[in-house]
Amino acid sequence: MTHRDLLSQARCGLLATPHGTLETPAFIFCATKGAMKSVTPQQMVEAGAQIILANTYHLSLQPGHEFVARHGGLHRLLHWDRPMLTDSGGFQIFSLGHGGVANEIKGRRNGHIPKTLLKIDEDGAHFRSYVDGRPCHLTPEKSIEIQRALGADLILALDECTPYHADKFYTECSMERSHRWEERSFREFARNNDGRQALYGIVQGGIYGDLRARSGHFIAERDFFGQAIGGSLGGTKEQMHDIVALTCQHIHRNRPTHLLGIGGISDIWNGVAHGIDTFDCVHPTRLARHGGALVHPEKMGGKEYVSLKNARFAEKNYPIDENCPCYCCKNFSCAYIHYLFKARELLGGQLLTIHNVAFMVRLLEEIRSAIRNGSFTEKVRSKSLS
Amino acid sequence: MTHRDLLSQARCGLLATPHGTLETPAFIFCATKGAMKSVTPQQMVEAGAQIILANTYHLSLQPGHEFVARHGGLHRLLHWDRPMLTDSGGFQIFSLGHGGVANEIKGRRNGHIPKTLLKIDEDGAHFRSYVDGRPCHLTPEKSIEIQRALGADLILALDECTPYHADKFYTECSMERSHRWEERSFREFARNNDGRQALYGIVQGGIYGDLRARSGHFIAERDFFGQAIGGSLGGTKEQMHDIVALTCQHIHRNRPTHLLGIGGISDIWNGVAHGIDTFDCVHPTRLARHGGALVHPEKMGGKEYVSLKNARFAEKNYPIDENCPCYCCKNFSCAYIHYLFKARELLGGQLLTIHNVAFMVRLLEEIRSAIRNGSFTEKVRSKSLS
Repeated sequence: MTHRDLLSQARCGLLATPHGTLETPAFIFCATKGAMKSVTPQQMVEAGAQIILANTYHLSLQPGHEFVARHGGLHRLLHWDRPMLTDSGGFQIFSLGHGGVANEIKGRRNGHIPKTLLKIDEDGAHFRSYVDGRPCHLTPEKSIEIQRALGADLILALDECTPYHADKFYTECSMERSHRWEERSFREFARNNDGRQALYGIVQGGIYGDLRARSGHFIAERDFFGQAIGGSLGGTKEQMHDIVALTCQHIHRNRPTHLLGIGGISDIWNGVAHGIDTFDCVHPTRLARHGGALVHPEKMGGKEYVSLKNARFAEKNYPIDENCPCYCCKNFSCAYIHYLFKARELLGGQLLTIHNVAFMVRLLEEIRSAIRNGSFTEKVRSKSLS
Repeated sequence: MTHRDLLSQARCGLLATPHGTLETPAFIFCATKGAMKSVTPQQMVEAGAQIILANTYHLSLQPGHEFVARHGGLHRLLHWDRPMLTDSGGFQIFSLGHGGVANEIKGRRNGHIPKTLLKIDEDGAHFRSYVDGRPCHLTPEKSIEIQRALGADLILALDECTPYHADKFYTECSMERSHRWEERSFREFARNNDGRQALYGIVQGGIYGDLRARSGHFIAERDFFGQAIGGSLGGTKEQMHDIVALTCQHIHRNRPTHLLGIGGISDIWNGVAHGIDTFDCVHPTRLARHGGALVHPEKMGGKEYVSLKNARFAEKNYPIDENCPCYCCKNFSCAYIHYLFKARELLGGQLLTIHNVAFMVRLLEEIRSAIRNGSFTEKVRSKSLS
C-alpha cells in the first residue's frame, strides 16, 4: 500500500508480478477466450490497459490448457507481457449451468443460455463442453492445474458462484462446500508453488450478512495472497454497495482485494471507498461492441454511457469527449461512429472499445490521484455516490 | 516517371496529390464503405499502406455524399490524410445489377446477389438502393458531383462495366455509350475543376482486342489525367494477362494507368510488366477476414495464400512468415491465429488483415526496387510468370 484515504477505506497500492507492477486501484479488462474482442494487445497498451484477464473455463475447452502450455503460456501466446489474471472456471460453469449467473448476480432474470451443468458434488462440477458436447469434470485441483498451465500472474481458487435467487439454506451449504474447495485449491497450489503465481481465495455468502462475515473470516484465516468477493451481490445497486461494504469489514485488510464482475462507474468509486483494489467486468468492452460509449456521469445527468447508434449522433461533428486523449476521440466524430454502426462496419466497435478502455484507465487514474491528494471522499460526495 | 525497365514496360513513378505523393507501382486498399474492414487507419499506416479507395456507390446511398461533404470530406471523416481514390459507382451498379460482375469479369458464374439494376439508358443508370429500396439515378454528371463532394484525390469517369458473358455486339454498344458517358464526365469535371482532384478515363472493350484498341485510343485522345482499364478481362489468368498486354499497347503511355479490381500476386507482376502503375482489389483484406494469409508463391509451390483455418496450422508455433516485419508476424504464431478463427474471435481477421496489407506493401516495394535496380524482368522470369 502506498497511500490511504483518511475518511474511507480507499487506498493506493503497487502489486508486483513477474510481468510488471500493477498500480491499484485498477480495472482488469476481459480477454475472455484469450483475445480482447476487436482490438490488438498493442491497441490495449496504447489505451493504457495495465492488466487483462482470461477465462479458465473457455480456454480449458478450447484450445485447451495443454495447448497453451505447449505454446509457452498465455502471455507468450497472446503477446501480452503485462500482468494477467485467470479466474477459476467456476463462474462460467455455474453461469452456463443455471442459465446466466451474470444476470443472476445482478438480480436480472433475462438470461436464455442453454444449461450445460450436469451435477455438482463434493468432488467438483460435471458439465458438458459447449464446444463439442463432451462431458467434463472440474475439481479444485484441476482448476489449479489448468491455471498453472495457462501461467497467469494472479489466479483464483475454485468456488461455486451462487445465483441471486438461491435461498439462504442453499447459499450456506454452497458456501461451505466452496470453502472446502478453496482449501483443496490452496493445498494443490502450495504443493507446486514456484512463486510465479499468486492465489486469491473467494469470499461467498450471497446477500446474507452473517454468511459474508463467516466467509470473509474463513478466507482471512488461510494463507491466500489475496481475496476476491464473488457470488450474488443483490438485486439493486444499493444492495450491492451494502454487501460490498459489509463484506469488506470481514476480510483481511492487508491483502489485495478483488471485486468480481463489477464495472459500473459508481460501483467502482463505491468499491474503492470500501477497500477494493481491483475490478473486472466485460461491461466496457461489450458495451462498445453494441455501440455504447462510456461518459462522465456528472456531465451527462448521471448517465454512465451513451449509445452512438442513437439518431441524435447522426450529425454530431465532434468527438465523444473532447478532453479524452484516446485514438477514437482524437480523430473521429460521433457522426462517423454512428454511421459505422449503421453500416455494420467492424471499425465502429473497435473505435468504441479503444475509447471505453481508455475511459476506464483514466477513471482509475483519477481515483488513484484523488486518493493520493486527499480529495477522494470529497470527490465521491460531489459525484453524489453513496 | 522516375525509372523504367529496359526489357518491359515496367516503370517507377511519383504521383503527387494534395494528400501526399504516391510511389508507383502501388496497390490501393479497399475501404469500400468508408472504413477499412477490421483495422484502423493507424494500423493501415503502420502496415505501410500509401493509398486507399472508397466506393461512390455505397457512400452515396449511405451515409450520402452530402453528409460526407458536410463533415469535411472523406479524408477528414475517415481520418486518412494520405492519397485516396474513389470509383465512379458504375462497377457496383452493374455488379449488383447483373448479380455479381466481380465474378463475371473473372469469368466465374457463382454470384447470387439480388438484382437491383432497373434500367440503363443513354442518360445513365436507374437502380434501387440496397439500403432502403428507394429508386436512384446515376448519370455521369451526378457521379462527378458525388465524387467532388467526397473529395478523393483521384476520381473515375462513369462507365458501364460489361460482364464476361456479354457478347461482342452488346460489349461494343456498351463501350460506345461508356465513351459518351466519359466525355460527359470529363465536361462536368472540367466545368468546376479546382485542381484538387484528377480524373481517370476508363478503357472498356471486354475481351475483344479491336474494341480495346478503339477504347484505348478514344481515352488517349481526350485530356484525362490518367486511364483505368475496366470491364471484363476474360475467363482465365492467361486471357487476363493477354488482354492487359494488348490494351496497354493502345493507351496513353505518359499517363498514370490503373488496372481495376485485380490483386493477385502474379497478376500484379504481369500488369506492371505491361505498364500498369496502380492496382486495387478487395482480395487481400477480404481473404484475411476469411482466414487466408498471403505468402510468397516461390516459397509455397506457386500458392499465393494459405488458409490459417487449416488443421495443419493448429500446432505451428511460429509466424506466418519469419521474415515479415508486420505486427502479426512479429508477435503471433500460426497456431494462435488458427485458434482465433476456430473460436470466432475478431482478432484473427484483424491480425491477418494487417499481415496481408503489409504483404502487399512489401510486394510493391520489391517490384519498385527491382525496376530501379534493373532486375525486374529477371525476377519475373525467375518467378515463372509470363
